[in-house]
Amino acid sequence: MEGLGDLSHASTVFSPDERFAFIFGRDGGLTKLDMIGARIAARVVQAGNAIGGAISDDGRLVAVSNYEPGGVRVFDADTLELVADIPAGSKTVGLVDAPGRRFVFSLWDAGETWIADFARPGAPVITRIRGVGDRPYDGLISGNGRYYIAGLFGEDHLSLVDLWAEAPAARPILPGYAAHDEKLPVYKMPHLEGWAFTGDAFVLPAVGLHEVLWVDARGFAPLGTTRTHGQPVFAMARPDGRQVWVNFAHPLNDVVQVIDTASREVIRTIPTGPATLHMEFAPRGHEVWISVRDEDRIKVFDCQDFARLAEIEAQSPSGIFFTARAHRIGL
Amino acid sequence: MEGLGDLSHASTVFSPDERFAFIFGRDGGLTKLDMIGARIAARVVQAGNAIGGAISDDGRLVAVSNYEPGGVRVFDADTLELVADIPAGSKTVGLVDAPGRRFVFSLWDAGETWIADFARPGAPVITRIRGVGDRPYDGLISGNGRYYIAGLFGEDHLSLVDLWAEAPAARPILPGYAAHDEKLPVYKMPHLEGWAFTGDAFVLPAVGLHEVLWVDARGFAPLGTTRTHGQPVFAMARPDGRQVWVNFAHPLNDVVQVIDTASREVIRTIPTGPATLHMEFAPRGHEVWISVRDEDRIKVFDCQDFARLAEIEAQSPSGIFFTARAHRIGL
Repeated sequence: MEGLGDLSHASTVFSPDERFAFIFGRDGGLTKLDMIGARIAARVVQAGNAIGGAISDDGRLVAVSNYEPGGVRVFDADTLELVADIPAGSKTVGLVDAPGRRFVFSLWDAGETWIADFARPGAPVITRIRGVGDRPYDGLISGNGRYYIAGLFGEDHLSLVDLWAEAPAARPILPGYAAHDEKLPVYKMPHLEGWAFTGDAFVLPAVGLHEVLWVDARGFAPLGTTRTHGQPVFAMARPDGRQVWVNFAHPLNDVVQVIDTASREVIRTIPTGPATLHMEFAPRGHEVWISVRDEDRIKVFDCQDFARLAEIEAQSPSGIFFTARAHRIGL
Repeated sequence: MEGLGDLSHASTVFSPDERFAFIFGRDGGLTKLDMIGARIAARVVQAGNAIGGAISDDGRLVAVSNYEPGGVRVFDADTLELVADIPAGSKTVGLVDAPGRRFVFSLWDAGETWIADFARPGAPVITRIRGVGDRPYDGLISGNGRYYIAGLFGEDHLSLVDLWAEAPAARPILPGYAAHDEKLPVYKMPHLEGWAFTGDAFVLPAVGLHEVLWVDARGFAPLGTTRTHGQPVFAMARPDGRQVWVNFAHPLNDVVQVIDTASREVIRTIPTGPATLHMEFAPRGHEVWISVRDEDRIKVFDCQDFARLAEIEAQSPSGIFFTARAHRIGL
């Protein structure tokens, strides 16, 4: 499919019936793709520069996070007509869906996290959470939609909001998380989508270090680290949580490593090829698809014995998105 | 669709592409239904009396649990040709899929749990776990595929197996769980599929009592109980874990109750109608579908404000199964 605009760093969400993909281009283009008809069902260029989006839990609303002119715009998923414009007075980042027809996002310039509640007809009800910290640059929500976590460019910690609280507030977690040795430059700020949940712990890429960090899923206390091949970009749990797969920043981005959750040890280093950018697990975790941009291939591996099962040719492949994401909160 | 045999207490699993349903009839019939073509793609009567089944994580194998002649039979998901026959010398119950092309089930007569591993070609590798307890009658697996729990007809506790262990073994949990006051008869043994995971706790129906039981998801210690309208049959967590919805045994089976996870209090009692048998949440939890057998209707409720959104006429509806189950471990 062509005609989707600038797809560097693009992302995708899916309609509940898995027929339509909503593709968020970096250039502000929002395209609704009919995957059965293999055609563009609708397209709007809704901003000058955008950074991802989300679809509401009922599949009726699609929201886009904008750098230029900033704010969040929300569209009808059927028609892509504008439903709500939330200027916010800031670049917005870390936009996710939350249960109850809500979207959560953070304001780079204002250091706030906002909850936009579309449960009732009409204008959304906005909850502003102040004091999140200096320059949130990304955010994510836990798989059950309860915890929203923002990464902060200007702080050494992360910010946590418990969305179940009566009056949601930001609380700093993992102090020192983003402090790093200045002799070791940060090649790429880790993607917070990469937080992996293993059942008892979250695993996240350390900033600027060759390690991943284990965090207690209750209380968010640090549990320890695992040394890795390079600076991790994505640390993703296999759907059963028994393994965490990690890819790395340039120039060490030609392998992935597999960490066993029980021992927290690297059990496998798989040479995947130059510019290994992204991974996506089959929904029940029997295989993983890995995009190897500079080899123009997707490679499919068995998640039990690590055998290479298949290769698919593709031009400079980047993100991989399976339609089963339609049924997950916050993806 | 007709011609599927005896569907009382029937259940269904789905192919990974959500096109095909595999329907396990009580009469031993296994039917592969093409939901796009609305036709029967294949059908075998594989036993005289069966009790549910499962599909492997890669979607290649379908297993059926049999009362008569007992054992488990495993079929090719494409053709329904027999791949493996595991007589087991017992009625089998609580059959579920587990990661790594495995099936787990329990033996009513022998008091054992078996793991059948199909990762390698050829005959499955069987792991027998002895000493599970007297007459396992049902079983379930946690959503991440780690913990297998069997209910025991002849004991007052449940049996837990950690499938991540090097040598999986059975350990008793929740002593006293199934002990009940003889003045209060048990109208129906609760379904263990009904275990609900709320993030920090599991919630399960108490046997013979008007309450649900809260259990710590780490260590399985009891945390307390919530008093309910009747004897619970299914206690099911909304996908975000913020609510638990409960239905009840005859003769109090005409309402459902909604419990708030944070306060553990009943926040709503919804009159649903006579013989309210089953519930199924939309995958991201914005609505719930409820089968009301003796009113010949499915009723759809909003999970935020409890409004009734729709009704669908159906003859004596029983279990409801959404195709998004295709992407879940153990369903």
